[in-house]
Amino acid sequence: MSEPCFLTAAAASRAIAEGRLTSEALVRSCLERIEARDPAVKAWLHLDPRAALNAAREADKRPRSSPLHGLPFGVKDMIDTADMPTTHNSANWQGYRPAKDAACIGVVRALGAVILGKTDTVEFAAAGRRAATRHPMNPAHSPGGSSSGSAAAVADHQVPLAFGTQTGGSLIRPASFNGLYALKPTWGTVSREGAKIYANSLDTIGWYGRSVADLALVAEAYRLDGIGEAPVPEPRALRIGLCRTPSWSRIEPGGETAFATAAERLTRAGVAVEEIVLPDAFGGLFEAQETIMFGEGRAAFLDEFLIQGSRLGQDFVDRAENAKGITPAQMVAAHDLAAACRRALPELFSGFDAVLAPASPGEAPVGLQNTGDHVFNALWTLLHGPCVSIPCTRGPAGLPVGIQLVGPRYADARLLAVAAALSSVIDAESAPPR
Amino acid sequence: MSEPCFLTAAAASRAIAEGRLTSEALVRSCLERIEARDPAVKAWLHLDPRAALNAAREADKRPRSSPLHGLPFGVKDMIDTADMPTTHNSANWQGYRPAKDAACIGVVRALGAVILGKTDTVEFAAAGRRAATRHPMNPAHSPGGSSSGSAAAVADHQVPLAFGTQTGGSLIRPASFNGLYALKPTWGTVSREGAKIYANSLDTIGWYGRSVADLALVAEAYRLDGIGEAPVPEPRALRIGLCRTPSWSRIEPGGETAFATAAERLTRAGVAVEEIVLPDAFGGLFEAQETIMFGEGRAAFLDEFLIQGSRLGQDFVDRAENAKGITPAQMVAAHDLAAACRRALPELFSGFDAVLAPASPGEAPVGLQNTGDHVFNALWTLLHGPCVSIPCTRGPAGLPVGIQLVGPRYADARLLAVAAALSSVIDAESAPPR
Repeated sequence: MSEPCFLTAAAASRAIAEGRLTSEALVRSCLERIEARDPAVKAWLHLDPRAALNAAREADKRPRSSPLHGLPFGVKDMIDTADMPTTHNSANWQGYRPAKDAACIGVVRALGAVILGKTDTVEFAAAGRRAATRHPMNPAHSPGGSSSGSAAAVADHQVPLAFGTQTGGSLIRPASFNGLYALKPTWGTVSREGAKIYANSLDTIGWYGRSVADLALVAEAYRLDGIGEAPVPEPRALRIGLCRTPSWSRIEPGGETAFATAAERLTRAGVAVEEIVLPDAFGGLFEAQETIMFGEGRAAFLDEFLIQGSRLGQDFVDRAENAKGITPAQMVAAHDLAAACRRALPELFSGFDAVLAPASPGEAPVGLQNTGDHVFNALWTLLHGPCVSIPCTRGPAGLPVGIQLVGPRYADARLLAVAAALSSVIDAESAPPR
Repeated sequence: MSEPCFLTAAAASRAIAEGRLTSEALVRSCLERIEARDPAVKAWLHLDPRAALNAAREADKRPRSSPLHGLPFGVKDMIDTADMPTTHNSANWQGYRPAKDAACIGVVRALGAVILGKTDTVEFAAAGRRAATRHPMNPAHSPGGSSSGSAAAVADHQVPLAFGTQTGGSLIRPASFNGLYALKPTWGTVSREGAKIYANSLDTIGWYGRSVADLALVAEAYRLDGIGEAPVPEPRALRIGLCRTPSWSRIEPGGETAFATAAERLTRAGVAVEEIVLPDAFGGLFEAQETIMFGEGRAAFLDEFLIQGSRLGQDFVDRAENAKGITPAQMVAAHDLAAACRRALPELFSGFDAVLAPASPGEAPVGLQNTGDHVFNALWTLLHGPCVSIPCTRGPAGLPVGIQLVGPRYADARLLAVAAALSSVIDAESAPPR
């Protein structure tokens, strides 16, 4: 593992800070890895090696401005980049060049990061055309979606960090499938400006890394409340809730094993674990998320529908035309249920430092059409709190299955500190320890 | 009033449909009005008469595609337009050209509308630099803000329709000050993609017109639920709640007169009116709106802050740096209070067809620095329901003061039908009847 592309973002950041690594060497290593691997993985929609190396050399010339200085990022191709196309993996947007970086890109570029390229995505991060990306560990499987390329690229050591988004389960589910770390921060704490809107109340920018420290580096860039201030606690001092969620009947063997294994490893490490059963009302959140996603999706695709006409895929026509017939009363009920459950969560979680929940039903599905089920993600997206995915086990097909730690709104810093304390316990199959 | 620029959008739409008016003649009339008046009013930041006339001629050549066909719009200059600059009235964004129309612009262009030009705004529709726009009826006064230019241009018959946005009271307050009609639709029903984000939970695209029918034309374009389906009721069949709001102590003589006059006119027209007092919890909404606006504004201006550095105005530095010290606990409390009040509203309003509330404390303030107080708007923005402003009286300085009708979330169609029934009653000083 002497190639820089195998370093975690946190390790690469330290190496750059100490003068042991240049951004150019890191980017070059990533590009070599991509050249060797991407014909099979197909994570990237746009990559300009010469431009990326130039950006890295420029970063090397400037004084180090932040822990992200010189680190390369992959960017899901529904997030605007001023110097690269943004296609949304849509036939109608091939070659489109935004005039401006999305806000989330502007922040990391200002802090010295290098945007390596754009990663494949389910069309508009919503429906329609699937990414061409294949699971890096088994090309017969999907890497999950919609953040398909970002997840596969980070998992395959093609880039240490990448942006994704989550409206249903598009960030955390692929993290579980690919043995990755990911943070979906609290809704509203990272600007979504310049990322394609799907559902106002749900869309959240997040990111992938290969350790909790990687996730924290990026969280710090966005100045999430209290990041880096909370000390990493001792596992023995922690109390973790085990939440199977009201959708547990849809768990698969791989997900069941991951959940049980994580609980067992925590117990063995001296962490106090206790089952937590959500009140009945939470059982309606899966349907409420779907109502809001499709109901808000009407507005999100109306311009595409009117402008593209018959060139627009049926999935988006259906959203713009409200094919599901979602009513105002259903929207109000869904928003109100979500708000009531959000409000109840801090007390329900008050006895715990974090809550462990499934991150996906099981392993990555076979084939590229099915990007996996967001049943174990949708409720947490709707609840607006932070989710950190942590790799855990392998499923029956030998592919990774992770779990997630979740917390109440704005508890991102605390959740990352707890995840830092527990990742080596839960992610016991990754060696060496991160 | 034979000049087409004096027609309401609804009247112009009919005239175009019946072949009595061309888009070219309408746009030409607007441009002449602008040429005569804008040196004093200063509503526009970008205007290309030749391009606008070309667009109008193109519209005249195409078959009529919707009631908006051929109608010109003004666009607040923080909403992206592919063929015009978008400057946010910020020194750092002069000459910036987006690559793509904002979603709201894409929709009306696809329906045949002509984008006339960009209107002045408070910087980023938030703070900092004020618009140079003056009140069209008295240049010593502000037209209000942040949708300053859009409001002034429509009030001054320079354009029949214009887009604005509301995060605090930036759409409805200027409507009140300028004797205008405006609709702030239910949050989330019109895509904000391509408009500058300030606060995720608040920002709402809306529009100005010179009649309720004008507002409905645009609402129909966005397919707001049930638009055009609800018959316009008889005033005598209606029951209207009178809601002074918990901030009534901040009403000024002009606002007090408008509210009392509207109530009196309704009563005389046979409308049943009854005071409605909001529960005590609603008293916290003004502060909650401010907490959320500044709290979410941290993320909105972080990229500007990191990229522009010292060139960025202090107002935005303060937001990015959380100068108010807003805590996660305050954010959670503010969101939860808003949600609880949203949930309570349908029952509180259930005995009424709509609720009448102040639209501004009083008349437009003197000078351009003070764009007016959003105290009577912030709670309704936070409550997410539709607001329709209707002109009513003149204040002590002889300038207009309006009122607003408000409704619960997603009741936009019903509210517009009620406003159509009551506008000639409330707006009795406008002649001829619209």
